[in-house]
Amino acid sequence: MNITKELLEKGSKVIDLGADFRLKDRHDWETIYGMKHSCWDISKGAVYGITELHREELRKSNLIANPGCYSSASILGLAPLIKEDLIDNEKIVIDGLSGTAGAGSELDIAIHHPEISNNLVPYNVVNHRHTYEIEQELGIIGDSKVIVHFTTTYVPITRGILAICHCFPKTKVSRTELLDLYKEYYKDEYFIKIIDIPKEENASWQYVPYPWVNSVSGTNYCHIGLDIDEKRNRIVVFSVLDSIGKGGAHAAVQNMNLMFGLEETLGLKRYGLHPY
Amino acid sequence: MNITKELLEKGSKVIDLGADFRLKDRHDWETIYGMKHSCWDISKGAVYGITELHREELRKSNLIANPGCYSSASILGLAPLIKEDLIDNEKIVIDGLSGTAGAGSELDIAIHHPEISNNLVPYNVVNHRHTYEIEQELGIIGDSKVIVHFTTTYVPITRGILAICHCFPKTKVSRTELLDLYKEYYKDEYFIKIIDIPKEENASWQYVPYPWVNSVSGTNYCHIGLDIDEKRNRIVVFSVLDSIGKGGAHAAVQNMNLMFGLEETLGLKRYGLHPY
Amino acid sequence: MNITKELLEKGSKVIDLGADFRLKDRHDWETIYGMKHSCWDISKGAVYGITELHREELRKSNLIANPGCYSSASILGLAPLIKEDLIDNEKIVIDGLSGTAGAGSELDIAIHHPEISNNLVPYNVVNHRHTYEIEQELGIIGDSKVIVHFTTTYVPITRGILAICHCFPKTKVSRTELLDLYKEYYKDEYFIKIIDIPKEENASWQYVPYPWVNSVSGTNYCHIGLDIDEKRNRIVVFSVLDSIGKGGAHAAVQNMNLMFGLEETLGLKRYGLHPY
Amino acid sequence: MNITKELLEKGSKVIDLGADFRLKDRHDWETIYGMKHSCWDISKGAVYGITELHREELRKSNLIANPGCYSSASILGLAPLIKEDLIDNEKIVIDGLSGTAGAGSELDIAIHHPEISNNLVPYNVVNHRHTYEIEQELGIIGDSKVIVHFTTTYVPITRGILAICHCFPKTKVSRTELLDLYKEYYKDEYFIKIIDIPKEENASWQYVPYPWVNSVSGTNYCHIGLDIDEKRNRIVVFSVLDSIGKGGAHAAVQNMNLMFGLEETLGLKRYGLHPY
Repeated sequence: MNITKELLEKGSKVIDLGADFRLKDRHDWETIYGMKHSCWDISKGAVYGITELHREELRKSNLIANPGCYSSASILGLAPLIKEDLIDNEKIVIDGLSGTAGAGSELDIAIHHPEISNNLVPYNVVNHRHTYEIEQELGIIGDSKVIVHFTTTYVPITRGILAICHCFPKTKVSRTELLDLYKEYYKDEYFIKIIDIPKEENASWQYVPYPWVNSVSGTNYCHIGLDIDEKRNRIVVFSVLDSIGKGGAHAAVQNMNLMFGLEETLGLKRYGLHPY
Repeated sequence: MNITKELLEKGSKVIDLGADFRLKDRHDWETIYGMKHSCWDISKGAVYGITELHREELRKSNLIANPGCYSSASILGLAPLIKEDLIDNEKIVIDGLSGTAGAGSELDIAIHHPEISNNLVPYNVVNHRHTYEIEQELGIIGDSKVIVHFTTTYVPITRGILAICHCFPKTKVSRTELLDLYKEYYKDEYFIKIIDIPKEENASWQYVPYPWVNSVSGTNYCHIGLDIDEKRNRIVVFSVLDSIGKGGAHAAVQNMNLMFGLEETLGLKRYGLHPY
Repeated sequence: MNITKELLEKGSKVIDLGADFRLKDRHDWETIYGMKHSCWDISKGAVYGITELHREELRKSNLIANPGCYSSASILGLAPLIKEDLIDNEKIVIDGLSGTAGAGSELDIAIHHPEISNNLVPYNVVNHRHTYEIEQELGIIGDSKVIVHFTTTYVPITRGILAICHCFPKTKVSRTELLDLYKEYYKDEYFIKIIDIPKEENASWQYVPYPWVNSVSGTNYCHIGLDIDEKRNRIVVFSVLDSIGKGGAHAAVQNMNLMFGLEETLGLKRYGLHPY
Repeated sequence: MNITKELLEKGSKVIDLGADFRLKDRHDWETIYGMKHSCWDISKGAVYGITELHREELRKSNLIANPGCYSSASILGLAPLIKEDLIDNEKIVIDGLSGTAGAGSELDIAIHHPEISNNLVPYNVVNHRHTYEIEQELGIIGDSKVIVHFTTTYVPITRGILAICHCFPKTKVSRTELLDLYKEYYKDEYFIKIIDIPKEENASWQYVPYPWVNSVSGTNYCHIGLDIDEKRNRIVVFSVLDSIGKGGAHAAVQNMNLMFGLEETLGLKRYGLHPY
């Protein structure tokens, strides 16, 4: 954070992929990162870097706090429901499944091939740091308190994140209405794709009404799909992205493009290798 | 089910790995399996085959309805909480992650290697058939209505299931108290192991306070671990087993041993290849 | 082949990804494909579609027989050695390792996830059909008889092929001389990259003097590396490509670009996701 | 090696899983391990620990040098051919494919999940240390000079090794004759299984005339299969074992059983999880 301070003072613009400037509550930040924040005044001016939600502010910003990968997936997946006040904001359960590239490039036992290759490794299962970002940003969208129950597990894929978001609707709503809502909400967004394949019973299509994480591998896309259990009254939203793409470096490029008045999609149109 | 009927009439004992005799509500059964049940009178006499919960009945039974793999993991994982009436029984969220052997031996696009190997494939995401078994059995344990919000996803491991169970406690309780409760509940069970490794910060141990599914691969063991978010008031229980072992054929052997007065562990003591 | 005949008669140009027009020996073709060839006169005019070896002919061709994926990797990997007459042409041993996408999109037990995910599956281990293409094309380059001992194995990666080519040099030659030879041979080729990282002993670099197949995933690149056992007198060449990219559809696009006078690299500059 | 010396002097018996006592040529040992051997007199008395080849010596030995995993697979796979003097002993090519557990438990970039999971990583591609053991032991069996051209590659499976051994027969021989030879050679061996499934064209069986490495995972078995290319005159032998089982700790237990007069199979009868 001190480097950021220096750079800003010299007139540079900064996009921070780390967590130094993501939270608006200093007490929360200092508690969960276990240190004093040395330049909180700067932090107050940072814009949270989900382009689709803060585009105009980002365009004018000198300091962008790019979100964590789980946060991007979860916030993009839940924003329309929160915006429309459709769900119980204090009972949101998210299981975040992450590929091993999400753990960073450093060697670690949890992503050592002999350990993870036939395995599923839960970690930071309660009070994960990204919880605070998600609650903060959804809280802003909904102008209300939001409580997120968030648990993370490493799975043996390389790239990508699947956020499985369980919500309890306040009123009756159908799968079709929800899909329409999402398509409308994201209708101008190049990098958000709503997966709206009808649910059918034939073998090759029954799995694809929901997003597949391999489709966004290596890209800046976020694919979102959903379903509703009308009998038990639950909405489940699936949001997938590449933790190094839309959940990381690519998202930073998208913000950089904005920040410097470039075409927002510049350098980012690469598609995934999988059709769905 | 007709074969079962015939076999019983001839005096055989039957352990059914299919779903014909698992449910106690005929209407539910006929709705979710999409057909008439041809011998409901027999079904009423069937014992649900989770040994740890119905040992004495199973010993005397002629017809055992062995549970689905997700059901075994979820029911064993939640039984102590329900028994002690510690959680909101109508707001249980379970994400079930399954290896590809859980899909059966038939070729299928969702478990075709080029599709699943870098992928996560949600399926039957609402109203999964196992939901009814889980609600039924937990309802019996708790003598109350239970509602389970259950979603399933294929992950690229071969064997094994991880059930991630999110519950909302009614009263304040600590991780240690919960672990003690589980150890007491399963204290006489050979095949249930409570993972009670302290949470520490050093690199090699931070992942192992929770069960690892590769540890039970090829075995009749079910490992259970848990944690609690005291800030947001949530318990998360992890339950792992091999869908072909404790979630399938091995569990049937365990019941067969009981049914025929054999040592319950006969032929089932094989350990997994992983230490945790 | 009959469709090709019709298309050619109507004046179309054809790039065939199948095997109908790859071989110059009718007897061989009819023996290994187990049928009569219905239009051998056409086949005689076909150009074998490895761009780097037949660029000028391909530019003028109406019928291009694109190579099999193993063939492309092996021929590109061995061409410089054959051209310079450096090795025993009748004792070439190639182990071809293929990802599961190389098996095609149809469901098959060898690429069913529960079978292949922890497995290595040898298949067509002798007399593989691609052997004939490789022998033919290397024979043309060397103007001599070439015998290739070729064995194939499926490995649990999705995309890509590694051809491990073992050759016995006729004269003393060093690793550096060989690398220089390869770099000279392919110096004008956009899509061929010679991996020439020095062999060092530090942990992070000891593996990367050789090509890594994940680096070419989803691309039209072929990476080639090599080493020499001076004690026992053997050269080993590693050649990697994506069986659907440079070993399939992308190579066809490269030829199409030539055939229609377009920039050869048009639509093909996508890089892999891995740095090495 | 100094610890071994001390233990032997105190009257202990030693089974060494390391490489200190495997070679009979001191110059070779000191060259490839890059140090002086401090107790070569002891080394001369060591027995090389492939039970099937040295059973009687092992029974009486105080110091057993257990082989490397690749060495066990290769030597067991080639012994019958060498014994019967059927092949050119100076032109044996072996590709050794190893799962990541073969790299040991220490973290390493080559077996870091994000690097290896969609990858194939060649390493020690010429002059691999195990080459010397293989040449030595096959040389003893054949009472002749043996030259092995050996290359190793990590593949993304956890456990197990596949040695693909290419040999050039001196005389005409059929697949059936070779299989009969192998069955006879190993007819009294509990842990060696010759895979003799006929080659047929139907989909589910065409892959299984050869051994599958997942079948021996976690076991002390070595499965061997083979084929012959009568047109080009090559034999290919496939030998699979678990580098931690028959290629490591289990083989040591087998030798320990012998050394102490116990039943040779004691504690080692565990089967793999896969039928082939």
